[in-house]
Amino acid sequence: MPAAPHPFDEAIGLEALPDGAFAGRASPAYWNMVGPYGGITAAQLLQALLLRPERHGDPVSLTVNFAGPVAEGRLQIRTQLMRSNRSTQHWTATMVQTQDSGSDSESVVAVAMAVFGTRRPVWSHTEARPPSIAPHDALPRLSHPQAPAFTRRYDLRFERSPFEHPPADSSSTCWIADHPPRPLDYPALASACDVFFPRIFLRRGKLVPVGTVSLNVYFHADAAALAEQGATPMLGAAQCQIYEGGYFDQHGELWGRSQRLLATTHQIVWYRE
Amino acid sequence: MPAAPHPFDEAIGLEALPDGAFAGRASPAYWNMVGPYGGITAAQLLQALLLRPERHGDPVSLTVNFAGPVAEGRLQIRTQLMRSNRSTQHWTATMVQTQDSGSDSESVVAVAMAVFGTRRPVWSHTEARPPSIAPHDALPRLSHPQAPAFTRRYDLRFERSPFEHPPADSSSTCWIADHPPRPLDYPALASACDVFFPRIFLRRGKLVPVGTVSLNVYFHADAAALAEQGATPMLGAAQCQIYEGGYFDQHGELWGRSQRLLATTHQIVWYRE
Repeated sequence: MPAAPHPFDEAIGLEALPDGAFAGRASPAYWNMVGPYGGITAAQLLQALLLRPERHGDPVSLTVNFAGPVAEGRLQIRTQLMRSNRSTQHWTATMVQTQDSGSDSESVVAVAMAVFGTRRPVWSHTEARPPSIAPHDALPRLSHPQAPAFTRRYDLRFERSPFEHPPADSSSTCWIADHPPRPLDYPALASACDVFFPRIFLRRGKLVPVGTVSLNVYFHADAAALAEQGATPMLGAAQCQIYEGGYFDQHGELWGRSQRLLATTHQIVWYRE
Repeated sequence: MPAAPHPFDEAIGLEALPDGAFAGRASPAYWNMVGPYGGITAAQLLQALLLRPERHGDPVSLTVNFAGPVAEGRLQIRTQLMRSNRSTQHWTATMVQTQDSGSDSESVVAVAMAVFGTRRPVWSHTEARPPSIAPHDALPRLSHPQAPAFTRRYDLRFERSPFEHPPADSSSTCWIADHPPRPLDYPALASACDVFFPRIFLRRGKLVPVGTVSLNVYFHADAAALAEQGATPMLGAAQCQIYEGGYFDQHGELWGRSQRLLATTHQIVWYRE
């Protein structure tokens, strides 16, 4: 009997349509408060680009602007190659959903831009340093029965619960792995970049209404780094710089084995109160 | 006799075409090594969006992917409103140039996404701290006769020259102002986000071939903050996290008067050697 697919593979599964678009579904397994987890939307958009036969090179950057709520059910992703150079490609992707009102009108729910490139053996150096944290096995897995479904698709381990001990600043460090374990690939790396809880929850010590407006991912891992990482937990760190006028930013890092910086990420988030 | 327009206003000047696109020119005044300064390209794209009559709200985020070299001469910008909500709008913009080969074929040279939103009086807090630097008047303006034209459109003041004293890390701090002085607005703020010299120049103490692949700007200033800033120099700080496989990142901050964080910015840059 074949093993059931991993929930992540099920969530990012896409069907190629005759017109070149891709059909998928909003994933109940990765549901957040009022729609799918933003990381899974980013992963679906990236997966559509990875499936394009003309695509060459590996992801270098991905920006996803969350234009409106993603509803339950079907969605479509349209991709467009904007420019192809010798070693880089520029793509755009748009996620749309058809309104259930009986009409054929569709809404854009997310727009994305991505750069793919060929990595080369050149002078390389990591200037940032990984944060320190207790060993993975020494920390309990975060478990909140009332937390949204997507949190159960991750194994997150903090030294101190980000919600029970609001710190003076919003920085936090944690171990991050898919649950159940799954070998790391680019869609999973993109998705994990959104796993850092909204910094305003930490800073204020309470939940307030929030929604990511734009998510930015810079990929620093090549295929060899992904293979070396496999299903080993990553080390994540995140912090906010400013909360101002209803929008706050946060930046994060995802570190792998051998002090390898796999991705850096930024987002700007709408908030109320 | 009317005053000559500021070079920045000349550079971002656009003509609305009957088909809804905008016509502009690659700016010789802001020329970089092999094409216009990336910041001025970002400012042109933002300016096109600001000129759209349907646009409401102020810039919250802007991402520009530099798809190919911008040549001298004419360019066009096409804008599209992807989604309009009560308090946010999602736009895309594409910059194209027609090849001079006599054919009508055009190339995409840059693609951009932007979010506009309405800022509200809510709980606000700046978690980051501004860097320290000597007073503006105590530092000389950076002057390199061989440097590209765009550097003469800025008044940049460093405590130590980023090129003559390569530091152990790539962090640097400087005063930033348009030259001649010009009251700050969103296009100028976007442009200034690209003014930080490529970190690899500082880290390696030499020039190597580079090109920004993607530039990300988060705007934290509302209209009142821009008005308060006026033409006062901003304080900038930037650093790299990783140089790996031919791509490095850098992140920067632009601080204004009263310790106000006006913008945060990130970019990923292709490099060779």
